[in-house]
Amino acid sequence: MDEATHIPGEVLVVGTGLVGTSIGLRLIQMGVMVWLWDVDSAALAAAVELDAGQELGPEADPDLVVIAVPPGQVVSAALTALDRYPRAIVCDVAGSKAGIVSTVAAAAGANGSRFLGSHPIAGREVSGPRAARADMFEHQRWALTPTPATPHYTVAAVRALAEGCGAVVVSIDPGDHDRAVALTSHVPQVVASTLAARLADADQSDLSLSGQGLRDATRIADSDPAMWADLLTSNAREIAPVLEELISDLRTVADELGGEPGPSGVSVRRVLERGNIGRARLPAKHGGAAARYSTVTVLIADQPGQLALLFTTAGDAEVNLEDVRIEHTVGRKNALIELSVLPGARDSLVEALVRGGWHVRQ
Amino acid sequence: MDEATHIPGEVLVVGTGLVGTSIGLRLIQMGVMVWLWDVDSAALAAAVELDAGQELGPEADPDLVVIAVPPGQVVSAALTALDRYPRAIVCDVAGSKAGIVSTVAAAAGANGSRFLGSHPIAGREVSGPRAARADMFEHQRWALTPTPATPHYTVAAVRALAEGCGAVVVSIDPGDHDRAVALTSHVPQVVASTLAARLADADQSDLSLSGQGLRDATRIADSDPAMWADLLTSNAREIAPVLEELISDLRTVADELGGEPGPSGVSVRRVLERGNIGRARLPAKHGGAAARYSTVTVLIADQPGQLALLFTTAGDAEVNLEDVRIEHTVGRKNALIELSVLPGARDSLVEALVRGGWHVRQ
Repeated sequence: MDEATHIPGEVLVVGTGLVGTSIGLRLIQMGVMVWLWDVDSAALAAAVELDAGQELGPEADPDLVVIAVPPGQVVSAALTALDRYPRAIVCDVAGSKAGIVSTVAAAAGANGSRFLGSHPIAGREVSGPRAARADMFEHQRWALTPTPATPHYTVAAVRALAEGCGAVVVSIDPGDHDRAVALTSHVPQVVASTLAARLADADQSDLSLSGQGLRDATRIADSDPAMWADLLTSNAREIAPVLEELISDLRTVADELGGEPGPSGVSVRRVLERGNIGRARLPAKHGGAAARYSTVTVLIADQPGQLALLFTTAGDAEVNLEDVRIEHTVGRKNALIELSVLPGARDSLVEALVRGGWHVRQ
Repeated sequence: MDEATHIPGEVLVVGTGLVGTSIGLRLIQMGVMVWLWDVDSAALAAAVELDAGQELGPEADPDLVVIAVPPGQVVSAALTALDRYPRAIVCDVAGSKAGIVSTVAAAAGANGSRFLGSHPIAGREVSGPRAARADMFEHQRWALTPTPATPHYTVAAVRALAEGCGAVVVSIDPGDHDRAVALTSHVPQVVASTLAARLADADQSDLSLSGQGLRDATRIADSDPAMWADLLTSNAREIAPVLEELISDLRTVADELGGEPGPSGVSVRRVLERGNIGRARLPAKHGGAAARYSTVTVLIADQPGQLALLFTTAGDAEVNLEDVRIEHTVGRKNALIELSVLPGARDSLVEALVRGGWHVRQ
């Protein structure tokens, strides 16, 4: 078991986009021999140039093959690798798992014991080899999705890869994984993009009253359309029912708001209340139960150095900041800084800030 | 005209919730005589206790009446005030304007020249007099919605109130205001709440893979349901068509994802691309055209003082930070800090951080 948890000596990365190239960069740093392959010769050349590994040659004999191609191409790439490298463990890194895992198991026969589905959860609104970083997965979660039939040595090899990349491993059933990410990542992506799409045709003057709420609600709509379209269609089975529930709620609200003689507000209020409840169930940033932070708002001049001074004051009070939001007001060169702290720390922070001469909004 | 832009000597605030009490607190600070009234005697007592003004007495003779009651009660409260105080200017602070402005104009006759619709845009996810702050409106936008029939002296009195509260005045047609806030505030509220509502019934274990994207997309779902249900129904006419467009897009995506033999991804990708375009049209924080910031990510120990040291380094480099995001990883006591700066400032920031020994993710 100790042996198996070591990073393999020779790794092949198939697919040199953002994730594959980042894994290559990390493994090279660790002294692992890395082979790279991509059908897109420009992407392959870029990854080689970045020193993420060397171009796959006929002499390659990998212990581990990482399939880092788009979701729709994972199965055929994995089957090819299992067939061509009969002693290698093969894993993928796609954001949906059940379809891939069951199809590979059905098609690979005995070779299937050498395959493990995995998903490094490191959301980025960028893509391509040039955006790759050796430390992309550090302190991020990396889901492994073994089935009861997956042997220990297969899990151990991929766990070693994930931990070697600095990630926190989460073991989860493939179907549970897909249901969870449909709810927490895929449906939010569809919703944020659909909301942001409303802004595409709007008069620019109608956008002038927009604020931080809209910016936050649409941030993930910056994601890469091609990559996400592939991912979303690969998890369509889990996304569709959640989307239907969501549309049903919106339909009820729209019917009420569009009705005659005028809306009662009952359905609208029910959705808003359910939203409060859902928010309260989100896990705290450090895991465990949901935590509500207390906030302290400070008005500062929006100039270099002001934030540094503010945080020095906060740091001197030995208060740990859980979150920071900077709210610039359109047209003015001031900023409101909202500091989130655990409720017990609020008073000492306010006291320290006031003593330091800061403009704390009470 | 100079006379008219002074804050009136005597003001009546009707409705002592978050907004009314905050206005009272500010006016008292400025030495204005403030009368307070609320049908809810507990809310009234709280506002008086907080020194936001004194309880309305029969001797009151206000120059300005601020109607700060829920949207559905604004018209009757405004008409009562116009009738009872024949020399007072009357304004409201509700988040929808066209219905209120036209109904008051139709019902008030000649008195209508003393009414002006207004909307201080200071989004908060809290409510009630206890959350009030004298500086709630500082550097926030405050929309005034005059009609061609509104006399100059009426606008001047309410402008003086808004500017006295430290706000940036935006003059806009009532209908344009409602169309703009439907798009930038009301529909996003419905969408964020509906998305967060999906989390209310989910298995807690399904929420374990949630991250910053979901937190950002649902943040405004923390808003007060009663207040927002009233506001949304009052602007139903502008919200409903935007919501219908949004549902139509979601319907297309859901049909594609739920279809047989399997989704093509064409519609999904189209929505994602429209989302990219919509996001790019959001105004920059300081106004003007949309600005894209460059980001620099730093890994720090999640302990008091670390952020202070980081910001001292950034401040010494004379780089102005446009935004800060703290990303804690579940279960680990480290944090990733994402600093947003104007593209031209990125290199100097990275250089300063690296020189300062920080772990910059490249």
